Amino acid sequence: MNKRLIFKIIGLILLIEAVFMLFPMIIGIAAGEGDWKYFLYTLIPCAAAGAGLFSVRIRNKNMYAKEGMAIVGLAWIILSLVGAVPYFISGFIPDYINALFESVSGFTTSGITVVADVEAASHGMLFWRSLTHWIGGMGVLVFMLAISPVVGGSSMHLMRAEAPGPVTEKIKPRISTTAKWLYAMYLVLTALEILALVIDGLSPFHATLISFGTLATGGFSYLNSSLAAFTASQQVIVEVFMVLAGINFSLYFLVVTGKVKKVLKDLELRWYLIILAAGSVLISLNVYFTRDQFTGFGEAFHQSAFAVISGMTSTGFAAYDYNLWPGFSQVILLILMFVGGCAGSTGGGIKVSRFVLAFKGLRGRIRETVNPKGTYNVKYNGKTVPENILRSTFLYFLMVMVITIFSTVIVSLEPGMDISTSIASVATTLNNNGIELKNSLVAGFASYAWWTRLVYIIDMLIGRLEIFPVVALFVFLFRPMEKAAGKVKKHLF
Amino acid sequence: MNKRLIFKIIGLILLIEAVFMLFPMIIGIAAGEGDWKYFLYTLIPCAAAGAGLFSVRIRNKNMYAKEGMAIVGLAWIILSLVGAVPYFISGFIPDYINALFESVSGFTTSGITVVADVEAASHGMLFWRSLTHWIGGMGVLVFMLAISPVVGGSSMHLMRAEAPGPVTEKIKPRISTTAKWLYAMYLVLTALEILALVIDGLSPFHATLISFGTLATGGFSYLNSSLAAFTASQQVIVEVFMVLAGINFSLYFLVVTGKVKKVLKDLELRWYLIILAAGSVLISLNVYFTRDQFTGFGEAFHQSAFAVISGMTSTGFAAYDYNLWPGFSQVILLILMFVGGCAGSTGGGIKVSRFVLAFKGLRGRIRETVNPKGTYNVKYNGKTVPENILRSTFLYFLMVMVITIFSTVIVSLEPGMDISTSIASVATTLNNNGIELKNSLVAGFASYAWWTRLVYIIDMLIGRLEIFPVVALFVFLFRPMEKAAGKVKKHLF
Repeated sequence: MNKRLIFKIIGLILLIEAVFMLFPMIIGIAAGEGDWKYFLYTLIPCAAAGAGLFSVRIRNKNMYAKEGMAIVGLAWIILSLVGAVPYFISGFIPDYINALFESVSGFTTSGITVVADVEAASHGMLFWRSLTHWIGGMGVLVFMLAISPVVGGSSMHLMRAEAPGPVTEKIKPRISTTAKWLYAMYLVLTALEILALVIDGLSPFHATLISFGTLATGGFSYLNSSLAAFTASQQVIVEVFMVLAGINFSLYFLVVTGKVKKVLKDLELRWYLIILAAGSVLISLNVYFTRDQFTGFGEAFHQSAFAVISGMTSTGFAAYDYNLWPGFSQVILLILMFVGGCAGSTGGGIKVSRFVLAFKGLRGRIRETVNPKGTYNVKYNGKTVPENILRSTFLYFLMVMVITIFSTVIVSLEPGMDISTSIASVATTLNNNGIELKNSLVAGFASYAWWTRLVYIIDMLIGRLEIFPVVALFVFLFRPMEKAAGKVKKHLF
Repeated sequence: MNKRLIFKIIGLILLIEAVFMLFPMIIGIAAGEGDWKYFLYTLIPCAAAGAGLFSVRIRNKNMYAKEGMAIVGLAWIILSLVGAVPYFISGFIPDYINALFESVSGFTTSGITVVADVEAASHGMLFWRSLTHWIGGMGVLVFMLAISPVVGGSSMHLMRAEAPGPVTEKIKPRISTTAKWLYAMYLVLTALEILALVIDGLSPFHATLISFGTLATGGFSYLNSSLAAFTASQQVIVEVFMVLAGINFSLYFLVVTGKVKKVLKDLELRWYLIILAAGSVLISLNVYFTRDQFTGFGEAFHQSAFAVISGMTSTGFAAYDYNLWPGFSQVILLILMFVGGCAGSTGGGIKVSRFVLAFKGLRGRIRETVNPKGTYNVKYNGKTVPENILRSTFLYFLMVMVITIFSTVIVSLEPGMDISTSIASVATTLNNNGIELKNSLVAGFASYAWWTRLVYIIDMLIGRLEIFPVVALFVFLFRPMEKAAGKVKKHLF
């Protein structure tokens, strides 16, 4: 195992985090708030530790795929642990598990908050919360790859482990160019949304918070009622950018380079838009005909589309209390949470392409079972899908199922937790969603037992990193223990 | 397609059903009830149609596997449609969809009743309900194979399509001997339970009803409160036979032939017993510490063990109102519903062996993904599992997931149906279980819209036949339509 390289990468991640922490500190100073110093107290040891680790001399830049996965898992855990410190030491979130929950919820772009009254939060804290979304959305290791050539030939493993979706495309021959390009596009879209929201009447500060939350498909708001108090046109702006954030960013590269035809033929994009449209129509019909609080079908459709876009892209902004909706709408929203955005987007969930692949694969295998003599190749975007991609897609679904069931069992031990609340809470954390279907919208998660919150924290990390980096990290952590146990066994029995 | 053979088999199935209907008719006459004649009105045309179809001359006894599957699907649908007629024409269940629901619930050994007051039912109707359990438990085609040599060489396809579990073993070289042996064992166990219950104070009639429901893992009772009014010792007798009914019947063959060691080493049996024990302990601790209505841990354990055994074997007898239990216990019961009994038992669910296979396969594939150079063979009962068995096991899980989600969406359209009720009701029908976790225990299903009930009816059939026979039947039904559509398309476009 290339330990020196691991140290160096973790060091660089800590340095990056320290630099990012300068922003809320400066904003705190500018706003004349006293809690800017807690960012300083955190970033100084963070930067020192980062510089120390980064100064390690590396002998070679190579690593195995599983090491790459474990590093990504480790980097995200350290990032979250450090990111929680300002919340905790400032007394903004006086319980460290809750502070960690908020930090993980930020970086993983889940957007579930444990802060009962965000309207009372300082500018610095609000900015840090939303900035963690923005960093986590495109990925901190992708950011590292964009700015530093430190890992060289092994960078593809890191990119693959952090980027969402079944396959990771390089849009440029060099990984670092790809990473730079992705972050540039991300920055442009964020700036466009800020501009649009400012024109529509938001302050630049608030527009920035909401745009960070939108482009990262995060969902932290600066209002206790999420976006329910926004005007219809402001909600529509957020809707449009949520849809854009859920699309594979490499498609924007094709648009920019003039290959629009190829974009329009993309199977995942088509299904993403079809599912969004179908979900909006189904839910709007359901809520319109079963509830009377809407003035007309137009308003019902607007609210439904917002919910479907926010739910499927895993953003988690709420413009309505979805607990009041009929069962059918809730079930559809729950399923869309698992579907998620496109591969290579900032969206959470299982990803549309995995669903398309799984359905095509399932159809092929059913045909094979009913008619064992035929062979049925699965095609995706015109190419035959190799068997190992199909296998790992099915595997991914089964693992999501296992993790969902396992987590549901543990959180259901929480007193007063019923079946639907346990399923809905696991769904919203594991898919980095943030829509709270069955929990009270304010501070529901903060009141659970520490081990229940720990399950949610682990689920958010598993969801963002798509299982394997976390599994790989566990394998690395348990290997020495297993070896020791093996030695004990050998000597004793 | 061997149509003549299909006609002959369906004819034989109808003749068998007509003969079975003689029993409730005779019991009705003996009890001096007027509704015996409705059985006669049904069985005469049923026998006539059966004899007509059976008289078709067949040219060869061969068929393909997919034909075998489609025949089994068709046979079960006809069996259920005819079995519902006495309920309907007697006015016992005045709505035909409800009568069909009761019939399908009987044959598939689900045991969910739409009869609000079973205590008011006649002896004949009660006997027919419980007899449909008994016929469906071991399988009507297995019965046919035991008594008639009509299908010859193709019988393995039928046996495989009807018998539950991932692989079907022949315990004897000849299928008809195997089928005879299975039914003999089934009869012996049923007789033993009747005897035990009669000794413990039940009338022979009631003991027979309950024993039919137990050995078939069905769950129809003759009391509105299921088995809640039974004495503790009567409940224990039922518990023991529920456990026995959930075990692979070919293991009894090994016991009878003295190969007890092989039985004790059987991986599925071990896990079946481990899961039953673990589930009982977990739930009893949970209910004991969160609810005060039990006099002591002993009573809590007794109630929990009954629920776990009834839930996991998919029998569905209830000795308690499980709606009152805490969330954790309900989630565990819900999961055990999906686990189900052993392959080759009369139990429903996905089957323990599929879970063992899937977990071993999942472990192997995760290792392969983390460490792509190694190869990881999956062993089951000491033998390496072929890749195609693993693939079809994973496929089965994914299909159960798809069917569960799809059904949940449709039934959630029912007004007032919330997330947990829709999931729990789909779980109880698809796994042929009968425990009503979220529905009111009496006549909850009877009040749903016809299309909701139809979804449950289809799910019960899909669950009992383990998906493929129903899929194969749909393929056969849709093929002529597809062909016709193809022709139209060819001529018009």
